[in-house]
Amino acid sequence: MTGKLTIVGIGPGSESLLTPMASKALTDAQLVVGYKPYIDSLGFVLTDQNVVANGMTSEVARARVAVEKALAGERVAVVSSGDAGIYAMGSLVYEMLAFYDWKPTDPLEVVMVPGITAAISCASLVGTPLGHDSCTISLSDLLTPWDLIERRIAAAAAADFAITFYNPRSRRRQQHIITAQKILLEHRDASTPVAIVKDAYRDEQLITLSTLGEFTDCEFGMTAAVIIGNSQSYMYGDKIITPRGYNHKYDYQDGGVKAGQQRGRSLNTAVGEA
Amino acid sequence: MTGKLTIVGIGPGSESLLTPMASKALTDAQLVVGYKPYIDSLGFVLTDQNVVANGMTSEVARARVAVEKALAGERVAVVSSGDAGIYAMGSLVYEMLAFYDWKPTDPLEVVMVPGITAAISCASLVGTPLGHDSCTISLSDLLTPWDLIERRIAAAAAADFAITFYNPRSRRRQQHIITAQKILLEHRDASTPVAIVKDAYRDEQLITLSTLGEFTDCEFGMTAAVIIGNSQSYMYGDKIITPRGYNHKYDYQDGGVKAGQQRGRSLNTAVGEA
Repeated sequence: MTGKLTIVGIGPGSESLLTPMASKALTDAQLVVGYKPYIDSLGFVLTDQNVVANGMTSEVARARVAVEKALAGERVAVVSSGDAGIYAMGSLVYEMLAFYDWKPTDPLEVVMVPGITAAISCASLVGTPLGHDSCTISLSDLLTPWDLIERRIAAAAAADFAITFYNPRSRRRQQHIITAQKILLEHRDASTPVAIVKDAYRDEQLITLSTLGEFTDCEFGMTAAVIIGNSQSYMYGDKIITPRGYNHKYDYQDGGVKAGQQRGRSLNTAVGEA
Repeated sequence: MTGKLTIVGIGPGSESLLTPMASKALTDAQLVVGYKPYIDSLGFVLTDQNVVANGMTSEVARARVAVEKALAGERVAVVSSGDAGIYAMGSLVYEMLAFYDWKPTDPLEVVMVPGITAAISCASLVGTPLGHDSCTISLSDLLTPWDLIERRIAAAAAADFAITFYNPRSRRRQQHIITAQKILLEHRDASTPVAIVKDAYRDEQLITLSTLGEFTDCEFGMTAAVIIGNSQSYMYGDKIITPRGYNHKYDYQDGGVKAGQQRGRSLNTAVGEA
């Protein structure tokens, strides 16, 4: 009997954003393995699958049982919220496969199903804050040295990336987001728009709009995503818009190019507004 | 009659990765507006909707017709491949709404439907290259001054972000990716794994695995995504793994924490391998 191991990104956890590919991976599985709250959110799709659901910081145990069962011939789905390859179970499952000496040429098939990561689901609720180059940074130092995290914040701040912070704050980590704010304020205006989004597309969804100067006064915890605009981002009603730059080149009235610009050619900044 | 304007991310363009929310937005629309190849890929879901499909560099014209029709009371869906908020139509549609003096408090409802962006769909086919902090950078200078793009490449390279390059090369822009490679080689080993993915999850899907030192010799164009691992990324068979750091803290044999580490506490780098 040949097993199958599918690493499934379930997106934000609402039925309407679970892809058909993810749905099928779950219904085809004999065993579904995941963090308990994520498993609980999948009640609409799970039927008679066996389930291993356990708590946070049990990721290694989850990866191990998933790999062992798949190697023994079961069809196993490991679920992550968002995308399984982004701050999630994906890498750990592959590392565990290597630990058990699995080789990609072995009969056991391993497949990833992509999902909508929190940066994207959260951003879509507050406009287009990630409309230009952006990055994701996790503020959790449980697995990453803090000095590396701080170096990444500084680089992203200086090079004007829009930023999504994952794991922005926890009971034990209150200071990290304050430090991040301080670094960002060295490069961006205090009025830079900030969105804090929790439980996107779920019943408990909570959206808070703020500014770089003030957002750390808002209440949020580890499961929120904090999105920081770049230097060009602005509020438009209750939305954050980060322009892609069409305004530098095109006339919105007729769609034609502005004087001094050429369609399909490099932006002419000598005559543009860039 | 009150219109509705939905800005829809259709993901990579395969039926299995179109979310139910995106599907419903398309079937509910009276008018679907988009770049022709994306519209063509939606044949499996579109029925009797009117369609405005046109070419590249016509984004402003598309945004204008979508906004005008929605303001006139139609139910309009604007489609973008991937996610509509990431290098896509989202920001432009909001800018066009502002140009037409729409206010978020007006009766016309504007909604975004999140989708799986190319970085995620492409990454999922080659392992977990984006398993830690990462960023996206577009190498197109049609709307962005090249010096800003170059500054972002340098920052991402120095701070060890995994990177996904969008619009990596075109007929007229052959040199940008070479410059990016040169900057990256100042900070990362030439053996750093690189994946080039084109048409993910579609019939024409093409995956090329290479290294930072050699990938610019491969054939690829504007529609490919180029994913560069960070300093910790490694090849495992035909997959690129970027570890999240569990190996610093946990024993994969029994899932317990290593000596000197504590579950739920900051990584103790004094005794770890970080």
